[in-house]
Amino acid sequence: MPYSQRGDQNYLKLYNRRKVLGIFRAQGGMSRVELSRQTGLDKKSITNITKELLDKQQIRFERLEKQKAGRPKEILALNGGHARCIGLDFGGSHITGVILDFAGKVLCSDSVEVNLREPLDPDLFFSICSLMIDNLLLRASLTMADISGIGIAIPGHSVNNGQAVLVENIPCLKNVDIRRYFRKKYQKPVLVGDCSQLMALAELHLGAGRSAESFLVFDLGLGIGCGIVINQALYTGIGGKAGEVGHTIVQKDGPPCSCGRRGCIESLASGWALHATASEYVRLHPEDVLAKTAAPGEGVTIKHLVQAAAQGSEYSARLLKNAGEFIGIGISNAISLLNPPLVVLGGRMLMDNPIVLDAISDTIRRVTIDVIYQDTVISVSSIGANASAIGAALQNMDRIYQMEEEDPSHEKHPQRALAL
Amino acid sequence: MPYSQRGDQNYLKLYNRRKVLGIFRAQGGMSRVELSRQTGLDKKSITNITKELLDKQQIRFERLEKQKAGRPKEILALNGGHARCIGLDFGGSHITGVILDFAGKVLCSDSVEVNLREPLDPDLFFSICSLMIDNLLLRASLTMADISGIGIAIPGHSVNNGQAVLVENIPCLKNVDIRRYFRKKYQKPVLVGDCSQLMALAELHLGAGRSAESFLVFDLGLGIGCGIVINQALYTGIGGKAGEVGHTIVQKDGPPCSCGRRGCIESLASGWALHATASEYVRLHPEDVLAKTAAPGEGVTIKHLVQAAAQGSEYSARLLKNAGEFIGIGISNAISLLNPPLVVLGGRMLMDNPIVLDAISDTIRRVTIDVIYQDTVISVSSIGANASAIGAALQNMDRIYQMEEEDPSHEKHPQRALAL
Repeated sequence: MPYSQRGDQNYLKLYNRRKVLGIFRAQGGMSRVELSRQTGLDKKSITNITKELLDKQQIRFERLEKQKAGRPKEILALNGGHARCIGLDFGGSHITGVILDFAGKVLCSDSVEVNLREPLDPDLFFSICSLMIDNLLLRASLTMADISGIGIAIPGHSVNNGQAVLVENIPCLKNVDIRRYFRKKYQKPVLVGDCSQLMALAELHLGAGRSAESFLVFDLGLGIGCGIVINQALYTGIGGKAGEVGHTIVQKDGPPCSCGRRGCIESLASGWALHATASEYVRLHPEDVLAKTAAPGEGVTIKHLVQAAAQGSEYSARLLKNAGEFIGIGISNAISLLNPPLVVLGGRMLMDNPIVLDAISDTIRRVTIDVIYQDTVISVSSIGANASAIGAALQNMDRIYQMEEEDPSHEKHPQRALAL
Repeated sequence: MPYSQRGDQNYLKLYNRRKVLGIFRAQGGMSRVELSRQTGLDKKSITNITKELLDKQQIRFERLEKQKAGRPKEILALNGGHARCIGLDFGGSHITGVILDFAGKVLCSDSVEVNLREPLDPDLFFSICSLMIDNLLLRASLTMADISGIGIAIPGHSVNNGQAVLVENIPCLKNVDIRRYFRKKYQKPVLVGDCSQLMALAELHLGAGRSAESFLVFDLGLGIGCGIVINQALYTGIGGKAGEVGHTIVQKDGPPCSCGRRGCIESLASGWALHATASEYVRLHPEDVLAKTAAPGEGVTIKHLVQAAAQGSEYSARLLKNAGEFIGIGISNAISLLNPPLVVLGGRMLMDNPIVLDAISDTIRRVTIDVIYQDTVISVSSIGANASAIGAALQNMDRIYQMEEEDPSHEKHPQRALAL
């Protein structure tokens, strides 16, 4: 809510410290003179603020920069070593992990393929996660003592920031309190979030969203989701469930969806819908190029569809194009509603998949009213497959940036304050 | 953008003054003690702030309230007479006007039916507006010298806050610079905005939205639009065009729309789509109850459909229900995307129209995923047919609340600063 804080000297101090940290975060290292120019604060205020941030080891001396005349300028920057967070991303087909530092640098990453759409013992699932965390720490030459928090991205939502709901693509996690497990095992603050929202957080701090006031990120994979950033802050909705674009309806009384409804975009164009449709087709048409692309007994995936389309399977090309068109309509609908300056397309479905990407772009242009379309830049994510894992780590890092002892508002966010 | 202002003593002063005005605006009159409690500021700060607001005549002594012991408490409140704004709303079938005071009180209102969907000489149109303004001033015993600004709501968007675009339902205003006309004639600041966005502004300050952090307002009439409030502020998108829910697509390759695309909600369920469909039906079925409801030669309107349905026309009932279902899908899609705590339904289509309202409510419940649906309260606007006109006046009032000489940010919003 606007004007929700007590407008006293503490508030002003916090406002300026956060502003300075935000500038370092968005733009990297700079001198005190440049900080003064960008904040509009006088030299003395900047000297005080930077001294405090240096004392807290949130920033550090980066280097000296020679001047044409006079003393060299001290360039200050975020101190990566101030905090490090682990981010894990549970997709339907993989688990991905990263370790991120306070300056936003990815220290290491890892990924394993696991078919989480099939029933799986949660204990086995958590063992895989533990192995990944051990591996990440080893690669970064760190121990758990160096870690400030663990973030988890799930393809669904969490109740009370822990218990997984709406995770149709990972049935073994349904109603499991993921946070409790990691919190108990590692004794660290743990935050669980929606993978598409966290992908948007990664774009906000490290991707195309750094310079956009507001933007939408579309996460296209086994499921279809959306992350929303408004006024440079993640917008999650009243129950944390914003961005369920996959379950918006683009065809009244269309095919049945995993959510029990009909005609959702996911039922028409998601990874799981394409797998099901294509697998059935292959069963009926064993002579098609597509049938020869997938190994016998193996389900047909998007990768197979892309390969088969490249080898001349008209069916595969048509299926991919059709999916792109429905996704394009869903994205266009979101653009018509929110008139954003930027839309970022991400997710595994787009990797090496020009047919879907072209169909999405063409459809957005075709079905969006011109005067609205012209306001929006459409771009493809430059962060890649680790985006949600990075976002999961960033969510914890944001907590560290935000939760300072002087913050009078954090008592109002018990979820955050009680994250450990 | 967050942290965009210079965090100095001026900023703090402005922050607290706006906070106090916001509390008066949302909650009405109160004592300094209560203000101190709500803002967290000490008695001296509150005394200073209220003195300044009293000096500026933005607030006034409202009454003395007796205490059990000690001196009676002074109750302060917004001073309605500090400013008065005119708001006009141009619908496809009517022109509505109000005069609103600084305290949010509607001093008077007026409405005339005009079919603006037919070609009309812009000069004639503006003459009707002038007559309405004269009439409003007369009723409120005011002259133009008492008016601080004029706000205009149009069913479309405006370029540079003045020139009308996307006004399919008022062809005579297409590309007309409405602001220039009123500014020249009345020599007052003029702001032109989208009627659905302005309806949301009315709900934010005077309706159901007062207590909601974020909400959506659906404006159902000849066209279909949406106003979006996020964090207690109107969200208008990068080009001011947010809320075009009427042109979101719920049926791929559906019927043609006024925007030139296919399958938009407006093409399936708006007032104009129903008029066209029902008029054609009446031509082919002169024996239907519906044909006897509308006068010969007169087009069929929603009012006729509602009357005919009540008199047993199954066709009319089915057409209305069908429209409600498509609108319900569109609203459900917006709920899935934004997970808002509140949705307000408004607009002329809902007046005495239980078939459409029931179909909308039933459809939203049926097609929205339960865990998302449960977060949202669906309510019908209590403000009624003047909502967009009130919002248009409020937009000017917001300018007066926001644009103070100490505001360091107003230079960044040239549109606002140059409104006159």
